[in-house]
Amino acid sequence: MLLLLVFVAAAHRGVADDGYRLWLKYDRLADAGQRAQYQKAARFVAVAGPDPVLRTAAAELQRGLQGLLGQPVPMQASAGPLSGGIVLKVERNAIDASAPNAPEGYRIYAEKNNLVVASPSAAGVLYGAYAVLRRVQTGGALAGWAVRSTPRIRYRLLNHWDNPNGTVERGYAGSSIWKWEELPQRLDPRYTDYARANASIGLNGVVVNNVNASARYLTPEYLPKVAALAGVMRPYGIRVYLSVFWAAPKVIGGLPTADPLDPAVQKWWANKTDEIYRAIPDFGGFLVKANSEGEPGPQDYQRTHADGANMLAKALGTHDGVVMWRAFVYKADGSGDRFKEAYQDFQPLDGKFDPKVLVQVKNGPIDFQAREPFHPLFGAMPRTPLVLEVQLTQEYLGFATHAVYLGPLIKECLEADTHAQGPGSTVAKVVAGSLDHHAQSGIAGVANIGSVRNWTGHPLGQANWYAFGRLAWDHTLDPGALAEEWTRMSLTTNAAAVRSITALLDQSRSIYVRYTTPLGLHHIMGESIHYGPQPWLAKAGRPDWTAVYYHRGDSVGLGFDRTAAGSNALALYQPAVQKQWGSAATCPLDYLLWFHHVGWKQPLSTGRTLWNELCHRYYTGADSVAWLQKQWAAARPALDAAVYADVASRLQIQQQEAYWWRDACVLYFQTLARQPVPAPFAPPTRTLADIKRQVQVYQLK
Amino acid sequence: MLLLLVFVAAAHRGVADDGYRLWLKYDRLADAGQRAQYQKAARFVAVAGPDPVLRTAAAELQRGLQGLLGQPVPMQASAGPLSGGIVLKVERNAIDASAPNAPEGYRIYAEKNNLVVASPSAAGVLYGAYAVLRRVQTGGALAGWAVRSTPRIRYRLLNHWDNPNGTVERGYAGSSIWKWEELPQRLDPRYTDYARANASIGLNGVVVNNVNASARYLTPEYLPKVAALAGVMRPYGIRVYLSVFWAAPKVIGGLPTADPLDPAVQKWWANKTDEIYRAIPDFGGFLVKANSEGEPGPQDYQRTHADGANMLAKALGTHDGVVMWRAFVYKADGSGDRFKEAYQDFQPLDGKFDPKVLVQVKNGPIDFQAREPFHPLFGAMPRTPLVLEVQLTQEYLGFATHAVYLGPLIKECLEADTHAQGPGSTVAKVVAGSLDHHAQSGIAGVANIGSVRNWTGHPLGQANWYAFGRLAWDHTLDPGALAEEWTRMSLTTNAAAVRSITALLDQSRSIYVRYTTPLGLHHIMGESIHYGPQPWLAKAGRPDWTAVYYHRGDSVGLGFDRTAAGSNALALYQPAVQKQWGSAATCPLDYLLWFHHVGWKQPLSTGRTLWNELCHRYYTGADSVAWLQKQWAAARPALDAAVYADVASRLQIQQQEAYWWRDACVLYFQTLARQPVPAPFAPPTRTLADIKRQVQVYQLK
Repeated sequence: MLLLLVFVAAAHRGVADDGYRLWLKYDRLADAGQRAQYQKAARFVAVAGPDPVLRTAAAELQRGLQGLLGQPVPMQASAGPLSGGIVLKVERNAIDASAPNAPEGYRIYAEKNNLVVASPSAAGVLYGAYAVLRRVQTGGALAGWAVRSTPRIRYRLLNHWDNPNGTVERGYAGSSIWKWEELPQRLDPRYTDYARANASIGLNGVVVNNVNASARYLTPEYLPKVAALAGVMRPYGIRVYLSVFWAAPKVIGGLPTADPLDPAVQKWWANKTDEIYRAIPDFGGFLVKANSEGEPGPQDYQRTHADGANMLAKALGTHDGVVMWRAFVYKADGSGDRFKEAYQDFQPLDGKFDPKVLVQVKNGPIDFQAREPFHPLFGAMPRTPLVLEVQLTQEYLGFATHAVYLGPLIKECLEADTHAQGPGSTVAKVVAGSLDHHAQSGIAGVANIGSVRNWTGHPLGQANWYAFGRLAWDHTLDPGALAEEWTRMSLTTNAAAVRSITALLDQSRSIYVRYTTPLGLHHIMGESIHYGPQPWLAKAGRPDWTAVYYHRGDSVGLGFDRTAAGSNALALYQPAVQKQWGSAATCPLDYLLWFHHVGWKQPLSTGRTLWNELCHRYYTGADSVAWLQKQWAAARPALDAAVYADVASRLQIQQQEAYWWRDACVLYFQTLARQPVPAPFAPPTRTLADIKRQVQVYQLK
Repeated sequence: MLLLLVFVAAAHRGVADDGYRLWLKYDRLADAGQRAQYQKAARFVAVAGPDPVLRTAAAELQRGLQGLLGQPVPMQASAGPLSGGIVLKVERNAIDASAPNAPEGYRIYAEKNNLVVASPSAAGVLYGAYAVLRRVQTGGALAGWAVRSTPRIRYRLLNHWDNPNGTVERGYAGSSIWKWEELPQRLDPRYTDYARANASIGLNGVVVNNVNASARYLTPEYLPKVAALAGVMRPYGIRVYLSVFWAAPKVIGGLPTADPLDPAVQKWWANKTDEIYRAIPDFGGFLVKANSEGEPGPQDYQRTHADGANMLAKALGTHDGVVMWRAFVYKADGSGDRFKEAYQDFQPLDGKFDPKVLVQVKNGPIDFQAREPFHPLFGAMPRTPLVLEVQLTQEYLGFATHAVYLGPLIKECLEADTHAQGPGSTVAKVVAGSLDHHAQSGIAGVANIGSVRNWTGHPLGQANWYAFGRLAWDHTLDPGALAEEWTRMSLTTNAAAVRSITALLDQSRSIYVRYTTPLGLHHIMGESIHYGPQPWLAKAGRPDWTAVYYHRGDSVGLGFDRTAAGSNALALYQPAVQKQWGSAATCPLDYLLWFHHVGWKQPLSTGRTLWNELCHRYYTGADSVAWLQKQWAAARPALDAAVYADVASRLQIQQQEAYWWRDACVLYFQTLARQPVPAPFAPPTRTLADIKRQVQVYQLK
């Protein structure tokens, strides 16, 4: 006995929480009374049939419950006369077939003293099984529990910007999780845990390669590799998609052109698509970045994006796949207002897309800034299903060293009102298809996942993956509640600690906005790497890659005039939106400098002048990082020591860099505003030249 | 009791061997009798004083012995009257001061029934402590054991080709282990385990950044990050070095020039060096790649490499650091024979270097090919200490999917006889400094380490890190014995399995040579990525980046004539070497095509014609991978299942790619030789066009 205890201790000593298990921890619940309650309701798992997804559901439930409850949970073919167990079953009528996305829905209910998890599909049962585990992990009662849930959006995808050489574009969590050179022979066990994590939050698709795509994935050399990944994903209800390189017919097909109206090109894609489906019968489809940032596309042949997308849709033929065509385009000349360009290119194509095409639109009109107004294409293309693309990797949000919980950012976009069909025409309804009665609907998160042990670099970055999946399933969920759910599953169930961490997460994005880009400032970060401040950047590869293009600061004031007096980008929105944002007096301060050039001495609704309000936000924002640190420190007793130390050190970096941002922006804008830093704030102790030198370090090769 | 057993099982189930612990496993020895023997000799560890390195030695010994022996091993300030323990002590006379590198040496001996580990330095005690652990891990007796060991080479370094953005040049094990954005605030626990691993095999220095260097490491922004790493390494006896960007005085110093004879440049480097030593008092020094492959250097100002190196040496002043100046240079025009160029640039500088300068020379004259003759600079610069640079990352050796144990490759170079001072003037003696009586000596391994969980990608790649360190300490060690040692410490102590795996490792490099570049072929791999075969490559950025430049195949024969009738590179070697290699009749077949253009029908010493011998080696080499697989399969019962499966799948890939290499080379060379594949070998079933298409896939962006 003593010997055994020694070993148990040793085993545990070696197992500091390295974050690998994400929110699927399944450690035994500490409260014996609570455990006893659950034990009564989880005496077995009953499941019938060989369906691989159903087997996954049962196995995961067994594994999770055994871990959480510390008792064996046998698996049986049926409940028979037994009670007190969990019964998984595929039941055609479990969900009313008229409900959107009914096949993936699940129903959980009590029957003969068992808890039944039923769905029209095995995938739905899997989602229900994870709902049961989540319920236990977060302390909800199983007795008397009944719930019915269907996903509000059909295609719920992660987009990986992973390159064939193992790098990840805008990735801050190590190299790609895909080891292409090892595939198909070696299947890294990590692939399975990745699939588990995705399925547990309801994601059902994965684009495995960067939208700046290599053609090699379409070759006979690589398709077996992709097929091997698809084989790992399949038992988790996840389909694999590919980003395609538009010029593939030329570079791997030997054709002289990639013109979508060329019959040889059409035939090449049709044959290629058939070849893909032979290797991957449940292949999800294509994601395309075309005529964007140097990528080839149909416009190279004077064809439209619709011509290109429709050609691929035709190539898919009767296969059950879709084309997700990205609207992230802006003209190569960089004149005009980049804000408007995707709209100008795409809105006129509404109604011209094949039913298999969805147009994928970023949440905002520029590029994943810390805060953007919703993209004007939402609500403006009623005849086209629009996929909402959000970015989980923190390209503009402090990489993996700043704590920025994205639940509120995603929710803010989803809840934004396009007024396309009057008040209440939210982006969420556009995306879910309910506003315009589309059966197709999609949402995509650009993954923040890499091969570092804890998946996301910043331990709190896991919450962004989690919240994205949960909101993709149900956009009505509250981001604060999701933060709490994630915390309980991932870090601690101690009530005070959960409160403290949830508050931290909840406030983190608005704090980040304050110390980097308050009042609607945007795109003033370090050149190319998008790290740290560089508001003075005036020369770059293109005018719309500079900072001054966006903030338009001068001796008079600050901000991009997008009213009729300026670029008139505002005209792309519905009148009701224009009305709200069109006057500097009524425009919410969060969007002020997105749409207005405001005088430095202009008083704002806060009672402060623009300059003073700007300083106020930079200073209070940067100081608020100390509050984040306090929240984290308060939770310390309830946290694993390794996780605590990891996040604490990142918060220190964040604090230092928040001051960096503050000082850079205040000192630079001060050269334009020519006013003192208002009391009670102390002027920065370093000079603008100091800061510029520091920023320059990150621009060195 | 039952409950505990359940948990023990659960804990163990979760702990498949993921390779993270390397050869420092410290799992309890299975044999109780053996354990009992050791337990009698390891009742305590006695150590006095606060020296951090000494504390490391004691702590590591305690940790290791507790793990291996399954008993508490208390730490005490002194043995006092006790016996049966291990006593660590720094003892000025432990090693005769006249022995080379005496301060780092250790002596282990019995005294008053204790085992004493003594050294003139704490670092030496640390190496001795690891020797004790190795002894126990590999089953040697402690009773009656006495040993004295000093490192034969003073500077034993890993060179990391890690970039500031987290990528690793020629790295195949994930992203860089250094998380620059997290430093200095966050110290990844991995840094400590990295330091442990290095110290355990006797390495004492680490160049943390790529030789294609960024200037940012020299900035006030980055020096604290480097200093933080140095702080982790210091208790392990490891010093940190930096690769420097020659043009740093311009890009971060604001000077108009980087001319080493410019007083302002000299002052800048002197000040910078002082600044570095203030941050890192035990900083090791600089590694420099200058005027090589596009890097700037002193030749930009019509100065020599010696001018540049000596300027840096002067900048080091009285600081205890050195300059390691790389000789890997070849002219930008690509005419001539690249084989000769480093020699031509550097040999005339012999005697012109500052005493603080060591010239770092790759093992062979081209670039880390699977087999190269020793570099002609060895033995040709008697007045200059030469650092031997070998590559552990498998840039040309199949990345992380081919099993290639490098012990024999390194040993082959070390044992090569330069004849510089008559027979027996081995490269090892040149490098160790014993031949030319240099006090300075160095060896560098380009690391194969990344952030993947198991450090090296291929689990067997760990053996290369291990063998490099052990050979760096003592080049007289046998690579086969090191393979066995590593296997016993890392994989299994089962005698049959150890034999089987050791044989696999021992043969692996010669098998790799056979199926890729037999008979002295070299540099016929895929363009730029250096992966897979591309012997037909005739056009590249430079002629000496093609394959045809090196194999010189034509209708007459194959091979690069480097005799007097050709490039006369052979003249760079001593007459005795020339004599051996200068005639195709006496040249060892392993080097044949390195030095001779041989007719396709020329009979070789094997009795076969060149063409038939070439086919013989490609076919038997590729088939030998099946033998590697058999060796591995034979060890299966003694191996962790996860490790077994991992290596087994990589061997499958290796088998497939060995056939790829064979078919590519046989089919391509056949177009020149115009002869059939000799019996009993079956001609490839695919065409050269098939293979070229496949190779092309890996050249796609």
